[in-house]
Amino acid sequence: MSGRTTRRRVLRVTISPDGPPESSARADFLAAEEPLGIRVDDTALTMTMRTPGDDIELAAGFLVSEAVVRSPADIAGIRLCDGASCGHGDHDGLGNIADVTLAPGVVVTAGARRNFMTTSACGVCGKASIEDICVLPHAALSADKTRFSPVVLASLPDRLRKAQRVFSRTGGLHAAGLFTTSGEVVAVREDVGRHNAVDKIVGWALLEGRLPLSGCALLVSGRASFELAQKAVLAGIPLLAAVSAPSSLAVSLAEEAGLTLVGFLRGQSMNVYAGAQRIIA
Amino acid sequence: MSGRTTRRRVLRVTISPDGPPESSARADFLAAEEPLGIRVDDTALTMTMRTPGDDIELAAGFLVSEAVVRSPADIAGIRLCDGASCGHGDHDGLGNIADVTLAPGVVVTAGARRNFMTTSACGVCGKASIEDICVLPHAALSADKTRFSPVVLASLPDRLRKAQRVFSRTGGLHAAGLFTTSGEVVAVREDVGRHNAVDKIVGWALLEGRLPLSGCALLVSGRASFELAQKAVLAGIPLLAAVSAPSSLAVSLAEEAGLTLVGFLRGQSMNVYAGAQRIIA
Repeated sequence: MSGRTTRRRVLRVTISPDGPPESSARADFLAAEEPLGIRVDDTALTMTMRTPGDDIELAAGFLVSEAVVRSPADIAGIRLCDGASCGHGDHDGLGNIADVTLAPGVVVTAGARRNFMTTSACGVCGKASIEDICVLPHAALSADKTRFSPVVLASLPDRLRKAQRVFSRTGGLHAAGLFTTSGEVVAVREDVGRHNAVDKIVGWALLEGRLPLSGCALLVSGRASFELAQKAVLAGIPLLAAVSAPSSLAVSLAEEAGLTLVGFLRGQSMNVYAGAQRIIA
Repeated sequence: MSGRTTRRRVLRVTISPDGPPESSARADFLAAEEPLGIRVDDTALTMTMRTPGDDIELAAGFLVSEAVVRSPADIAGIRLCDGASCGHGDHDGLGNIADVTLAPGVVVTAGARRNFMTTSACGVCGKASIEDICVLPHAALSADKTRFSPVVLASLPDRLRKAQRVFSRTGGLHAAGLFTTSGEVVAVREDVGRHNAVDKIVGWALLEGRLPLSGCALLVSGRASFELAQKAVLAGIPLLAAVSAPSSLAVSLAEEAGLTLVGFLRGQSMNVYAGAQRIIA
């Protein structure tokens, strides 16, 4: 596994109003991106382009998001394959495979979300409805009576930014932050992909025995997609906030699942798209 | 297929320095997000969460990006499954399946990128190197001697924004724009996912017989990932520019493939990470 950032030479070009463009070479930090393969019980399940770090948590969180595991006891072990221990000599030993062993009786079924999405319903045609791509019941989330203060919510983007270690060096990472109702940081993870940042948080919570994450708010940089809303629901998080816009399907899922969805959380205002009963008037 | 935007009721909450938070309900437009299944020769290949519209182009572009097709003759036909014509009655007829028939002799092999990534090299362990996740030779791109003016490049973000139809209503869409060396818009596509916006452009170009896109610049909103750089390379685009940061692997691929990679293209400046010989001094 490599580091979270890499150093590169870059040519900075600036346009001058009074003459030709000026350029100068300098060193710059980039957010690292490398593939991570996730292998479950000796079968390759998926590959994600991620920023190295917290890879075991990422693999664990991915399996929660795919509805394969729900408790730490569902996982017998996760190790990073470093290339030496797998008995093959033809790869570079970067440790870019997370090798998961599930507990006896836990299996990756065709009902796991990703498979379900690509082969569902009408055999080959699929069925483009939310029920098709959501596999778990959401009753538990609707029962979460936590309430959140708009003043606290408005403070979260600043708190998230301050907790980001890599972004400030590279400007190139998404972040996800888990917060208490009083705005305390529970966990922050960064990644080139927002979905990975969220999976890293969910995987951390799984391995710490903290699922479901009742009473917590999850803030993501950027936009709120269906996929992120689903990850929040599967982790039992009652409130998902995004700095930017949500998609239509994220809102539909939030309404159906009882998730509070906040978008455009910037400065002193926010839009509440679903679950407004959790926002203290 | 539904529209590109949907209308939703939203609660706008604003924090007041002198009293309790104020809230008001209003209607808001959201960027539409729905699943699109891509089926090739009667086998489900993938599912992507996308903004409806240009779905045939999206499916075609996806197949270029996966190195399944390289010319319009490789595709015998693409139709959207509307639920009535497939002989099944249990779905909602949204037309959210793109049904691709390849030309005789064109097949989705294990060498197609997505399969290759998850099952590659060391059998089950994979090999985390760039060669593993790039399947095509890049010789053609290095031969593209097009040069680009920094002044023209600096004008592209404004041009892209002006061409975006949906973003201005929702604030929620990524965009990809294809430009000539003089800054003329060739094509602009929007989507909740940047990769889809690029696939829509590449698919449009494929179906129009315009591949490879020699002499063009591709601008994406947001960041430049490995995946986007690879899409540019496979489409024969010599310059990829992003409004925000590139990842380490995007830069590595650009260097190896002969792609010019520009990041932080904002205002009157930009960073050139690879292929600076195409930028006119």
